[in-house]
Amino acid sequence: MNEDRLRQLLEDVVSGLLSWEKAFRRIKDLPYEDLGYAKIDYHRTLRKGFPETIFCEGKTPEQTAAIARHMWERGENVLGTRCSPESFAAVQKEVPQAHYDATARLFTICSEELPLSSSYVAVLCAGTSDLPVAEEAALTCESLGCRIERIYDVGVAGLHRLLEHREKLAEASAIIVCAGMEGALPSVVAGLVSSVVIAVPTSVGYGASFGGIAALLGMLNSCAPGLTVVNIDNGYGAAVAAAMINRLAERTRSE
Amino acid sequence: MNEDRLRQLLEDVVSGLLSWEKAFRRIKDLPYEDLGYAKIDYHRTLRKGFPETIFCEGKTPEQTAAIARHMWERGENVLGTRCSPESFAAVQKEVPQAHYDATARLFTICSEELPLSSSYVAVLCAGTSDLPVAEEAALTCESLGCRIERIYDVGVAGLHRLLEHREKLAEASAIIVCAGMEGALPSVVAGLVSSVVIAVPTSVGYGASFGGIAALLGMLNSCAPGLTVVNIDNGYGAAVAAAMINRLAERTRSE
Amino acid sequence: MNEDRLRQLLEDVVSGLLSWEKAFRRIKDLPYEDLGYAKIDYHRTLRKGFPETIFCEGKTPEQTAAIARHMWERGENVLGTRCSPESFAAVQKEVPQAHYDATARLFTICSEELPLSSSYVAVLCAGTSDLPVAEEAALTCESLGCRIERIYDVGVAGLHRLLEHREKLAEASAIIVCAGMEGALPSVVAGLVSSVVIAVPTSVGYGASFGGIAALLGMLNSCAPGLTVVNIDNGYGAAVAAAMINRLAERTRSE
Amino acid sequence: MNEDRLRQLLEDVVSGLLSWEKAFRRIKDLPYEDLGYAKIDYHRTLRKGFPETIFCEGKTPEQTAAIARHMWERGENVLGTRCSPESFAAVQKEVPQAHYDATARLFTICSEELPLSSSYVAVLCAGTSDLPVAEEAALTCESLGCRIERIYDVGVAGLHRLLEHREKLAEASAIIVCAGMEGALPSVVAGLVSSVVIAVPTSVGYGASFGGIAALLGMLNSCAPGLTVVNIDNGYGAAVAAAMINRLAERTRSE
Amino acid sequence: MNEDRLRQLLEDVVSGLLSWEKAFRRIKDLPYEDLGYAKIDYHRTLRKGFPETIFCEGKTPEQTAAIARHMWERGENVLGTRCSPESFAAVQKEVPQAHYDATARLFTICSEELPLSSSYVAVLCAGTSDLPVAEEAALTCESLGCRIERIYDVGVAGLHRLLEHREKLAEASAIIVCAGMEGALPSVVAGLVSSVVIAVPTSVGYGASFGGIAALLGMLNSCAPGLTVVNIDNGYGAAVAAAMINRLAERTRSE
Amino acid sequence: MNEDRLRQLLEDVVSGLLSWEKAFRRIKDLPYEDLGYAKIDYHRTLRKGFPETIFCEGKTPEQTAAIARHMWERGENVLGTRCSPESFAAVQKEVPQAHYDATARLFTICSEELPLSSSYVAVLCAGTSDLPVAEEAALTCESLGCRIERIYDVGVAGLHRLLEHREKLAEASAIIVCAGMEGALPSVVAGLVSSVVIAVPTSVGYGASFGGIAALLGMLNSCAPGLTVVNIDNGYGAAVAAAMINRLAERTRSE
Amino acid sequence: MNEDRLRQLLEDVVSGLLSWEKAFRRIKDLPYEDLGYAKIDYHRTLRKGFPETIFCEGKTPEQTAAIARHMWERGENVLGTRCSPESFAAVQKEVPQAHYDATARLFTICSEELPLSSSYVAVLCAGTSDLPVAEEAALTCESLGCRIERIYDVGVAGLHRLLEHREKLAEASAIIVCAGMEGALPSVVAGLVSSVVIAVPTSVGYGASFGGIAALLGMLNSCAPGLTVVNIDNGYGAAVAAAMINRLAERTRSE
Amino acid sequence: MNEDRLRQLLEDVVSGLLSWEKAFRRIKDLPYEDLGYAKIDYHRTLRKGFPETIFCEGKTPEQTAAIARHMWERGENVLGTRCSPESFAAVQKEVPQAHYDATARLFTICSEELPLSSSYVAVLCAGTSDLPVAEEAALTCESLGCRIERIYDVGVAGLHRLLEHREKLAEASAIIVCAGMEGALPSVVAGLVSSVVIAVPTSVGYGASFGGIAALLGMLNSCAPGLTVVNIDNGYGAAVAAAMINRLAERTRSE
Repeated sequence: MNEDRLRQLLEDVVSGLLSWEKAFRRIKDLPYEDLGYAKIDYHRTLRKGFPETIFCEGKTPEQTAAIARHMWERGENVLGTRCSPESFAAVQKEVPQAHYDATARLFTICSEELPLSSSYVAVLCAGTSDLPVAEEAALTCESLGCRIERIYDVGVAGLHRLLEHREKLAEASAIIVCAGMEGALPSVVAGLVSSVVIAVPTSVGYGASFGGIAALLGMLNSCAPGLTVVNIDNGYGAAVAAAMINRLAERTRSE
Repeated sequence: MNEDRLRQLLEDVVSGLLSWEKAFRRIKDLPYEDLGYAKIDYHRTLRKGFPETIFCEGKTPEQTAAIARHMWERGENVLGTRCSPESFAAVQKEVPQAHYDATARLFTICSEELPLSSSYVAVLCAGTSDLPVAEEAALTCESLGCRIERIYDVGVAGLHRLLEHREKLAEASAIIVCAGMEGALPSVVAGLVSSVVIAVPTSVGYGASFGGIAALLGMLNSCAPGLTVVNIDNGYGAAVAAAMINRLAERTRSE
Repeated sequence: MNEDRLRQLLEDVVSGLLSWEKAFRRIKDLPYEDLGYAKIDYHRTLRKGFPETIFCEGKTPEQTAAIARHMWERGENVLGTRCSPESFAAVQKEVPQAHYDATARLFTICSEELPLSSSYVAVLCAGTSDLPVAEEAALTCESLGCRIERIYDVGVAGLHRLLEHREKLAEASAIIVCAGMEGALPSVVAGLVSSVVIAVPTSVGYGASFGGIAALLGMLNSCAPGLTVVNIDNGYGAAVAAAMINRLAERTRSE
Repeated sequence: MNEDRLRQLLEDVVSGLLSWEKAFRRIKDLPYEDLGYAKIDYHRTLRKGFPETIFCEGKTPEQTAAIARHMWERGENVLGTRCSPESFAAVQKEVPQAHYDATARLFTICSEELPLSSSYVAVLCAGTSDLPVAEEAALTCESLGCRIERIYDVGVAGLHRLLEHREKLAEASAIIVCAGMEGALPSVVAGLVSSVVIAVPTSVGYGASFGGIAALLGMLNSCAPGLTVVNIDNGYGAAVAAAMINRLAERTRSE
Repeated sequence: MNEDRLRQLLEDVVSGLLSWEKAFRRIKDLPYEDLGYAKIDYHRTLRKGFPETIFCEGKTPEQTAAIARHMWERGENVLGTRCSPESFAAVQKEVPQAHYDATARLFTICSEELPLSSSYVAVLCAGTSDLPVAEEAALTCESLGCRIERIYDVGVAGLHRLLEHREKLAEASAIIVCAGMEGALPSVVAGLVSSVVIAVPTSVGYGASFGGIAALLGMLNSCAPGLTVVNIDNGYGAAVAAAMINRLAERTRSE
Repeated sequence: MNEDRLRQLLEDVVSGLLSWEKAFRRIKDLPYEDLGYAKIDYHRTLRKGFPETIFCEGKTPEQTAAIARHMWERGENVLGTRCSPESFAAVQKEVPQAHYDATARLFTICSEELPLSSSYVAVLCAGTSDLPVAEEAALTCESLGCRIERIYDVGVAGLHRLLEHREKLAEASAIIVCAGMEGALPSVVAGLVSSVVIAVPTSVGYGASFGGIAALLGMLNSCAPGLTVVNIDNGYGAAVAAAMINRLAERTRSE
Repeated sequence: MNEDRLRQLLEDVVSGLLSWEKAFRRIKDLPYEDLGYAKIDYHRTLRKGFPETIFCEGKTPEQTAAIARHMWERGENVLGTRCSPESFAAVQKEVPQAHYDATARLFTICSEELPLSSSYVAVLCAGTSDLPVAEEAALTCESLGCRIERIYDVGVAGLHRLLEHREKLAEASAIIVCAGMEGALPSVVAGLVSSVVIAVPTSVGYGASFGGIAALLGMLNSCAPGLTVVNIDNGYGAAVAAAMINRLAERTRSE
Repeated sequence: MNEDRLRQLLEDVVSGLLSWEKAFRRIKDLPYEDLGYAKIDYHRTLRKGFPETIFCEGKTPEQTAAIARHMWERGENVLGTRCSPESFAAVQKEVPQAHYDATARLFTICSEELPLSSSYVAVLCAGTSDLPVAEEAALTCESLGCRIERIYDVGVAGLHRLLEHREKLAEASAIIVCAGMEGALPSVVAGLVSSVVIAVPTSVGYGASFGGIAALLGMLNSCAPGLTVVNIDNGYGAAVAAAMINRLAERTRSE
C-alpha cells in the first residue's frame, strides 16, 4: 500500500464519494492483518517510505514464510534479514521469486522495482570476516533505492589502503563502516570526511573482543565528531539510517 | 581560516604568483600552532566546515584558556564543551567576549556570525534531569548554524505529552533524543517519524542504571530502524552528526 | 493434599479422635516423599494454594517423570516448566493424560479441574519472538485458575497497535508484559494503566542485548511506578505473582 | 484535579452546557502547566489515583521547590523522593507545611488527608543499614493511604528473628522486603507466605556487592515464585506497586 | 610414594648407607616423570598428603589416560575430575579397575584403601540440579578418607526441610553447601552452625544467573561469618579444603 | 550470656525448679533487646561461641555507640569492624575502655579476657598497602582467642622473601593471605602447605584491578586445592573462618 | 617480494633505467592483488620483515585457500593461524607442501628457509591445557626465524618445577608465558628475570575464569615490572612481539 | 648495590678470603631491611639492573618517606610513582635533593648519574589529557638511562599529524603509545613500524569509556601484530619494558 492510495481515500471523503466513517474504518482495518502471531504493520511502510522488513531470527520458518507471503500478496517489496537457509527454503516455497544472499543471510522480494539514487552511501569494512555485516548493510541500502560504493578490507593496520579511497569517501552522502576487533576504522574515517559516519561494530574477534563489545566501546568513545553507532552486527539498522540521509542528499540533486 | 583562503592560495600557485614549494609550506605550517601540549588542527575546520571545538575535561584551566585564545586570535569560531566554571573564568580573562551556558557547561566565542538554517533539528529530552545534555546538543547545533526546536520533558510514561508534538517531529531533518534511566524514548520517537533519530543516553538514574549503561543498551537494541546512538552524555557528538544531516536538507531548500 | 484435609486432622485432635502425637507425625510425614534426589514439598502447595511445579531444566527425563508421577498419584495438579520434548516423552509414559504445549515448553497434569476466575490478567508481548515466554506466562496463569487476555505483537515502534487495547488493559487486575531487545514496552504500558505491571525481559535480541540484559536493565530503570520485574524469560514467575494479585481482585467480585 | 471534575465536564457536554470543542480544550489544557523545564502531568494523577511525585535527584533545589509549589497550589497531595536537605529547605520556603523525613530523604505535602486502609502491607528489612530504603517504602505507602506493618532487622543469618513474625506476614496483602549484601531475605520470606513479595535490593555492602548488584541478582534468581523485583534502592517503586495490590485487597474488605 | 619412603631415604643418609649426593638426586629425580606434555608432581602428594588429581577438562583422552596410568603404576591413589565418558573409556582401557561416577563426572583408581574418618563433613545441595557438583564434592571427600553426610534438596524456599537436619549440621566438622540460582542456602546454614561453611556456587539457573555469577556474588556477600567460597561448580576444591579441616577434627578424636 | 547459663536453665526445668513455660519464655526473651533499629542477637553468640560483632559501615555513630553499649552492659566482648574515627569517638563516649586500631579501623571492648590458643593462624599480606585488611584479620583472630603469626610484604614478584617463611607456614593450623592487584600470592602459598588457605582479595590496585575484582577472580580460579575465598577486603570474615578451624586444631593439642 | 627488489627499483630510477612515474606505479601496484574479498598487503611484509599471516577464523575454507595460494605464488613464506582442519584441507589442495600442526591449529608454507637465530625466546606454559596457545606462539616464532626454548607445565602451585629452569630463563632475550585460570605464572617469572615477559592469558578454566578474563586481569595487574600482555589465547601476537625483540638481541650477537 | 659487589663476594669465597657461610649470610642479610611494614628488596635491583621503585599510592606519606630515605642512604637511585604532593613533601623533608614532577606525579632521587642511551624509545600520546601518563612513562625511561623522543597530541582523528613523524617512529627501538577514549592510536602506529609497540590505555574519557576499559579492550584486540598492552594508566610498567628492550638495542650499537 502506498501513500497515493491513502491520499485518494481522503480525497474521496472530501469530495463526498466516501463517508468519513467508512474511510476511517478502512484506514484502520486495511493496514493490519492478524496472522495470529504477528500483526503486520502497513502503517509503518507509510510512515517510513520503505519496504517492510522481517527480522527472521526467533521466528519459525513457517512464521517467516507466512508473513512474507502476506506482504508480497499486498504488493509490498519485502526484505528478510538474519534469515537462515532453512527459513529461506520455506519462504521460497511460498514466494518463488524471492531472492537470497547467503553471505548477508538476507532475502528480498521485489514487487515494484525501485530506481537507484544518483547520490550514494559508501560501505566500508575492515577485514574479510566483516563481509556478512557489510553486505547486509549494502544490500539493505540497495533494496531501499540507495546506491552503494563498496570499499572493503581497509583495516587501520595498513593505512595506505584506506587513504587511496579518500576521494570516493569525500563524495558520499553518508558512510557505513563495519569493523570488529578493536573497531578503530570508523574513527580514522570520520577524521577524513565531513559527512556522517555510521559505525557498525561486528562480532568478529576472539578473547577480549567479547563478541563485539570491544569494537562497540571503541566506536562509542571515538573522539571524531559526526560518528554515530548501531548495535553489534546491525548492518540493517545502519543501512536504514544511511538511506534516510541519502534521501535528503538525493532530493537536493533532483531538484 | 576558511576554505576560501585555501582556494586563493592554490589559485595563486596556478597563476604563478606563488611557487608550489612556498604554497605547500604555508599550507603545512599555517594550520598548526604548537603550544607545547596541544596541536591545534585548523585542517580539521577545513575538512569539517565547522568551528574548532575544545573538549575541556582533563585540561587545566590554563591549557583551555591558551588554546581558546589562539583559536580566537586566528578568527575562528570556538566552542568549548564540558567546561567547568573555573575553566571558563580562565577563558574569559583571555577572551572577554566568550559566552558561557551554565546548564550545558559550554562556552562559545563567536568571531563570525553564522546565519541559522531554515530547516531544523528537533532536540527532545525525557525528563528535567536530562536538560544539561539536551542543552549541550542544542547549543552546539546552533553554534554550527543549525536551527533547533526544543521539545522537553516528554518521557514515555506519559505518552500524550509526546504525541502532541508529532507534526513538529515529522518536519525535522533529524531528531536528537536525550534520555536516561530506561532510555525508551528514542524507540518510541523513531516509530513515529521517517527521519534519522540520534539517541543520546544520559547518565541520569540510579541503581541498575549504571551511570547510563541501561539507557545505552536500550537504545542500541531498539527495534525501530533509523536510530543511531552516541556515547553516554555526548550531546556534542549527536549535535555534530545532526548538523551534518541538516546541511544536506538545507542545501535542498536553498536550491 | 488440600487445606481441608489438614483442618480435618486438627479437628480430629481437638475432638479427641486423634492423639496430638499421631497428628503431628502425620503432618510431618505426609508431605514428604523421598525419591532419593528430590524432596517433594506438599507443604508448599498448602502454603501457596497452587499446584506443585516441576522446573524440568537440569533434571534428567527420568527424574522429571518420576517426580511428576508421584505428584499425580497424590491427586495434585502438576505443572512442568522448561520441559524439553524428550523429558515430556518420559512424563507421558508415566502419566498418559499429561498435556504438552510445545511453544511454551510446558506440560500440565490436571487432576482436579479449576474454574477460571472472572477477573483477568492481561499478557502482552512485543514481538513474535517473545511468544514462548508469553505463553509460559499465560498457560501458567490458567493452570492456576486465572483467566487471561492475550495482547500480542504490540511493540513500541508502532504505538497505535498498543493504544487500540487501552480499555482491555484498564480492566485487568494485573498485567504481564514480555519484551526483549530494548524492553521499552512495560514502561509505556505502565504509563497507561493504574494496575501493577509485571515486566518479563526476554532473551530475544542479538549483539548488545546480551541475552536479555538490555531488556532487564531497561525494565528495572523504568520511570513508570507500579512496575516490577522478574528474571529473564521467567514467564512462570510473573504468572504466579499475577495470579496471586488476581485472587485478591477475584475475592472482591465474588463477595 | 480529581475524577469527579472530569466526569462533570463530560456530563456538561452531554447536557449541552458546554460545547465539545471547549470541553476538549479544557481537558487538554488544564492538566499541564509549563514551567519551562518540566511539564507537570495531572493526567497521571487521574490515571493512577495517587498523589503526584517529584523525583528530586538531578533537579536543582529551585526546580524542585517550584514544581512542589505548583502542585500544592492546585490542591494536590505531593510526595518528594530522594530529596536532599538543601532541596527540602527550598521547598519549605515555598510550602511551609511540607514535612521532611531525614532517614527516608523524602518530603510530603498533605493537601487532603487520606484515610489509612484496614488491610496492610508488610515492610521488612534485613539490617539497620537498609533502613533508609525501607522507610522510603513505608512512608510512600502511607502517603498513598496504605497501612504499613514494619518488621525490621530480620536478616537470614538469624532465622528465628524472622520466624517470630510468620503470622503478621501471612495476613499482609503484599510484602516489601529490602535487603543488601547477598539479598537472600526475600527468597526466604516468599517461601513462607502466599502473597506477592516485592524485593528491593539495597546498595548496602562492600567489595563484591557492587553497589547492590549482588543483591539484585540474588533476588532475580530466586526460586521462590510470587517474588518480583524493583531497581536497587527503589523503595518508592516497590511502595507504589504494593499499594496498588493493597487497594484490591481493601476493596474486598470494604464491600 | 608416601612420606615414609622419604624419611627412610633421609635416615639412610644419616646412617651412612647412602651418600648425600645420591639421596639428593633420587629425591630430585623420583617425583617427576616427563610425559612430554605434563610433569606429574609426586612432591605435591607428599606436601598435601592426598592422592594426586587429574583435572581432565582440556586434556585429550589419550593424555588423561597416559597420566592416570603412570600415577597408578607408581602405586598412587588417583582421582580424575571433570572427566567425560569418552576420556574415561580411554582411562579404563589403560587401568581396568578405574571406577567412574557419571553424575559427578569423576573417576577414582584405588591403589591403597583409605579408612574413612569418624568425624564427618556434611554436603548439602539446594536442588536436584545441583547434584553433580554436590556429588563431585562428596566423592572427592571420600577418596580423601573423609566421611560424608549427604543432605540434599533443602533449598531456602522451604525452610522446614533444612531445619529438620539441624543436629546433623551441628555435629559436622565442616559443611559444604552447593547452590545455584540466588545461592542463599549457605548464608542460612552458616547462621545455624558454628563450623566453617564452604559455599560452592553452581552454574544452575538461567537468565540473570549468568552461569553461576549470581550465586557466587550472593555467597561472597553473605553476612554470616565463617563462610568461605570457591569457584563456580568447584566441588573438588571445596572437598579438599573440607577434608583438610576434617583431618584436624579427626586428630582430636583419635588422640 | 554463655552456654552454661542455658544449660542451667534447662536443668532447672528437668529438676522441677522451673516450669517449662517460664523457661521457654526466658530463652525466647533474654537474647533480644529491641533498640528500635537493630535486634541484637545473643543467640548467635551462643551458637558461634564468639563475641558479638558490629559492622559499623552504614550505621550512624549514634546507632553504633548505642549497640556497643548495650552489648557491653550485658558483659559481652564486643568487636566493631569498619569503624570510622568519628564512630569510634561516639563509642568511646559510651564505653571508655573501648580500644581502637586506626590501621584496621576496628575497635574492641574486652569484658572478659580470652586466653590465646597455642596453635596459631598465619596472616600474610603481599604489600604494604594490604596492611589494613591484614590487620583487620589479625586483630579479629586475636579477639577470638586465636594466636597469630604475621608474615607481611611477601609478594610473588620476590619469591625468596616468601620462601624464607616456609616452616612457619607449615605449622599453621590455617593461613589467611591478603593480596590485591593480581592476587597471585594465595595460589603460591597454597602450593607450599597442606593446611587450608583463606584468600582475601583487597581493593588495592588501579586501572584494571577494578577495586579488587582482578584479585578476587585470580583467587577463585586458583589451581591450588585447599584454597577458599572471602569477599574483597573482608579480613573479618576470613578471621572468623580461620579461628573456627584453629579451634579444631587447639582441641587436639589440649587433649 | 623482499626489500632488495624495492631497493633495485629505486636504484633503477636513480640510474635513469626507469622513469619515476613508472617506478611509482609499480610500487603502488605490485603489493596489492585484489581477490574481491581481501586485499593482500605485501607492503606490510616489507614494513615488518616477516612472512605474511592469514588469520583463518571467520574466513571460509575457499577464501583461506585462495589467499594462501596467491601469497605462495609470489614466493612469500606464509603462516596461517586459527586454521580448522577443514580449512587446511582446502589450503593443502591448493598448496600441497603446506604443513599443519593440529595442536597449534596453524599451518606454514615455507618458500624460503629462514635460518634460526642464536639468541632465543623462552616459551612457558602453566598446564597441559595451555599447550595449544603455547605451541601457536612457539611455532610462530620459529616461522619468523626465532629460536625457541620450551618450558612447559610449570604452574605456580608447584614452584620447584619452575625454579629448576632459572638459568634458561635468565639467558632468554624475551619470555612468553601462557597461563589460564588465575594467570599468576607471568608475575612469578617476571620477578625472576630482567628481560621482557609477554604474558598470554588463555581461555583455560571454568566458572569464574570467564573464558580467560580472570587470567587477563591478573596479568594486567601484575606488580612485576617488565611484563606486558596480549589478548586471550593470542599466542601469535606474543610471538611477533617476542621475535621483534629477539632480532635486536640477535643483531648484537652477530655484530 | 651493584652486580660487581656480588661477584667480588663470590670471588672472595673462591680465593679463600671469605668463608662460604659468611658470604652466604651476607648475601642473605644485606638486601633486606625490615622497616616493620615493608621489606625493601635490593635483590630485585640486582636482578633487574634498575633503580628501586616505590609505588606510593596506598602508602602513608610517612611510610613513603621512610622507604625512600633508606634506599637513598644505601646509595640507590630511587623512583617514586603515583606520588601525591603531600607524600612528596614528606619525602623531601627526609631527602632534600629529591626531585618532583607534578604532571607525572613522580619523584626521583639520583644517587649516581646514569648516562642516557644513544638508541631511544618514542613516547606518543593521543591527546593533551593523556599527558600525565605519557610523562610518567617518559620520565621513568629516563631514570633508567633510556633516551626518549616525545611525540604528543597525535590522535587518529587527524592522521596527518601522526604521519609527519614516520621517520622518527621507524628509528625507535620500541614505542610507547598512550591513549584513552577509543584507544585506536596504538593500532595505527603498529601498522606503520616494525618495532614493538607497548600500548598504555589511559582513563581519559567519559560515559562508555568506563575509566579506560574501552581503550584497554581496543588495544588488546588490535589486529596489528607486535603490539602488547599494560594496565590502564600504567606508564611506569610500559617504561620498564621499553627500557629493557632498548638495552638490547643499545648493546648492539655500543659493540
